[in-house]
Amino acid sequence: MSALRFDISRTCNQSNARTGCVTTPHGSFHTPAFMPVGTKATVKGLLPETVADTGSEILLSNTYHLMLRPGSDLVARQGGLHKFMNWDKPILTDSGGFQVFSLTDIRDIDDHGVTFRSHIDGSEQRLTPERSIEVHNRLGADIIMAFDDCPPASEEHANVASGMGTAKRHAVKAGSYDDRNRIAAERTIRWLERSIRAHARPNDQALFPIVQGGTDLELRTWCANAVSQFDQPGFAIGGVAVGEGHEKLVEVVNHTAPLLPTDKPRYLMGVGYERDIVAAVRAGVDMFDCVLPTRNGRNANAFTPTGPVRLRNAKYRDDTGPIDPTCDCLACRGYSRAYIRHLFAADEMLGPILVSIHNIRHFQRLMLDIRHAIRDDAWSLLRSKWPVIDI
Amino acid sequence: MSALRFDISRTCNQSNARTGCVTTPHGSFHTPAFMPVGTKATVKGLLPETVADTGSEILLSNTYHLMLRPGSDLVARQGGLHKFMNWDKPILTDSGGFQVFSLTDIRDIDDHGVTFRSHIDGSEQRLTPERSIEVHNRLGADIIMAFDDCPPASEEHANVASGMGTAKRHAVKAGSYDDRNRIAAERTIRWLERSIRAHARPNDQALFPIVQGGTDLELRTWCANAVSQFDQPGFAIGGVAVGEGHEKLVEVVNHTAPLLPTDKPRYLMGVGYERDIVAAVRAGVDMFDCVLPTRNGRNANAFTPTGPVRLRNAKYRDDTGPIDPTCDCLACRGYSRAYIRHLFAADEMLGPILVSIHNIRHFQRLMLDIRHAIRDDAWSLLRSKWPVIDI
Repeated sequence: MSALRFDISRTCNQSNARTGCVTTPHGSFHTPAFMPVGTKATVKGLLPETVADTGSEILLSNTYHLMLRPGSDLVARQGGLHKFMNWDKPILTDSGGFQVFSLTDIRDIDDHGVTFRSHIDGSEQRLTPERSIEVHNRLGADIIMAFDDCPPASEEHANVASGMGTAKRHAVKAGSYDDRNRIAAERTIRWLERSIRAHARPNDQALFPIVQGGTDLELRTWCANAVSQFDQPGFAIGGVAVGEGHEKLVEVVNHTAPLLPTDKPRYLMGVGYERDIVAAVRAGVDMFDCVLPTRNGRNANAFTPTGPVRLRNAKYRDDTGPIDPTCDCLACRGYSRAYIRHLFAADEMLGPILVSIHNIRHFQRLMLDIRHAIRDDAWSLLRSKWPVIDI
Repeated sequence: MSALRFDISRTCNQSNARTGCVTTPHGSFHTPAFMPVGTKATVKGLLPETVADTGSEILLSNTYHLMLRPGSDLVARQGGLHKFMNWDKPILTDSGGFQVFSLTDIRDIDDHGVTFRSHIDGSEQRLTPERSIEVHNRLGADIIMAFDDCPPASEEHANVASGMGTAKRHAVKAGSYDDRNRIAAERTIRWLERSIRAHARPNDQALFPIVQGGTDLELRTWCANAVSQFDQPGFAIGGVAVGEGHEKLVEVVNHTAPLLPTDKPRYLMGVGYERDIVAAVRAGVDMFDCVLPTRNGRNANAFTPTGPVRLRNAKYRDDTGPIDPTCDCLACRGYSRAYIRHLFAADEMLGPILVSIHNIRHFQRLMLDIRHAIRDDAWSLLRSKWPVIDI
């Protein structure tokens, strides 16, 4: 019995895109899917029922953060992550690889694992593939990510990195970047073998390997072929959206996605903006996650099909219209731009809450329209409804 | 046509308590009623539908805050306060009297009005009875409070004031307290006459006079008789819960409430704790408001029938039980004490949100049980279900 089933209902005639459904022990989600981020076992500011009302069918949470606080043992004693956070639909937990390399002071890294200082209290912590899987097993998410050596962005990329969670502090000089990248990719495969061996709940938790390799397409090929040797229920592309820009991202994804098994879901980690998602779907990617909807929402920046709306702007002071007149979300059905601007001016929690709801719904509406485009070969309609894709 | 109808369905045999229903242009609410506070046109952190789900049927908001930001003209252009904040049930707006005297630097006060500095930007502002009513009329709440000269607590009271919003900064020495108190009471009546004359929407906004007089029962008698001369649709008792303590509060309310017209709703402003509310209901009070549920909720302090639960306490670290096993609120139905403690430790918004929901529901459940106690003469059952009343 497998932890995961993937049914493809339609493959695009014009691209590698496909639409379908992934079934887990906690129910199904439609693909291509967008997963809101609930780092610390909560999507910031939103009740789970409110998240579900945005059309979200699966959430992402982080082993790194939960391992440090409140601890995976505590979550296990509470009946697991689903019960702890009151979300009975599918959950995916990230391995901690990315967070260890982007948030902490690394003390030591070798083939056995990583020693680092907690970003919360500075305490020394150690993560190995075995320990990461143990945490995953205790949390009980439906999809769990293999612990990877997540190479820092090159200095060049880190410098242009957008606010999407970058590895600036560990950026390495261009000269040593290729070496570090290759070491990371090879180590990721060795760690994958150990993760699969250590996995104690393969029947109810689907372990996804991660392809690394940075922007080195040859290394991506090697890594994609290596992970594909393992008969895992799904596969991920990591190490993108770290500042390399849209063109490079698309190049890497166009190259890598088709190298992964066709009959398994493909997950592009940490992506991203609307046009990144559409390009990746056309390359054959099925799953996405990103902090942008909630992070930008907390800063009064709303996504719309025609581009961002900065709700703190004085021009919305008297605006009786909704954030986005085309949107059907709870925020757009009941509240004016002027009211939301007032909430931010008055430092009221409801401002971040309403814009987060809108932004998540924005991405779920995009995914709905993407699925329709795949089903009906209606890509030009998608582009006309979502000008932001071509911006 | 009157802005308000009050139907008493049952009067208690053992006390002055009564239960009934108040009907406004935006629907009805059952009495005795508890109004959550939405100072800046939002109950902090909660969607209006979530507030409604707690059983709340009427909200309180503040002309003082809304006049300063975003401004009553803006709210009027947005279609009024109900539409602005997406709450189509009854709203009561406070006059600003209490806020001017407790939050601002008073520059000048005389019979015509008050000049003060805004607590937001220090700008000079002026409030008179006419200006207060103009703001009320623009906001469009169903019940509006007359602008009163709200005497500061005596130094003695201010020093023992709990966190319920006190007038500490303007506390006056005991010697001058009686004089200041009498001037305030008399001025409040002169201002009431002007407020009634200035009121432009008497058919859809019910203007409630406020009885002042501090802890001086003779002055309370004079003031209650004076306001009762006006044929207004409801009456309020102000100037309590400013640090005078439970015994004094009960003494003032027991004395004052019966002096107000029996056939009109009586509102005790800014009260309070459970035992204060029960005592006041028995004195004949029908309406209450208080910031405690949301303010304490944001600080992880939960109300329960057996007393407060401080959810940051280490003893709840592994507690799988709900905040209050007797509670039917959204928070108690889905989340453990350990999870809520984790949310506060991780500084996650959902912590304040969940405890605010619980605390508001706690007070609404108390009001439900109080109405049942009145209907069925079941006060001893109420006391056994709510030990906190006798604490």
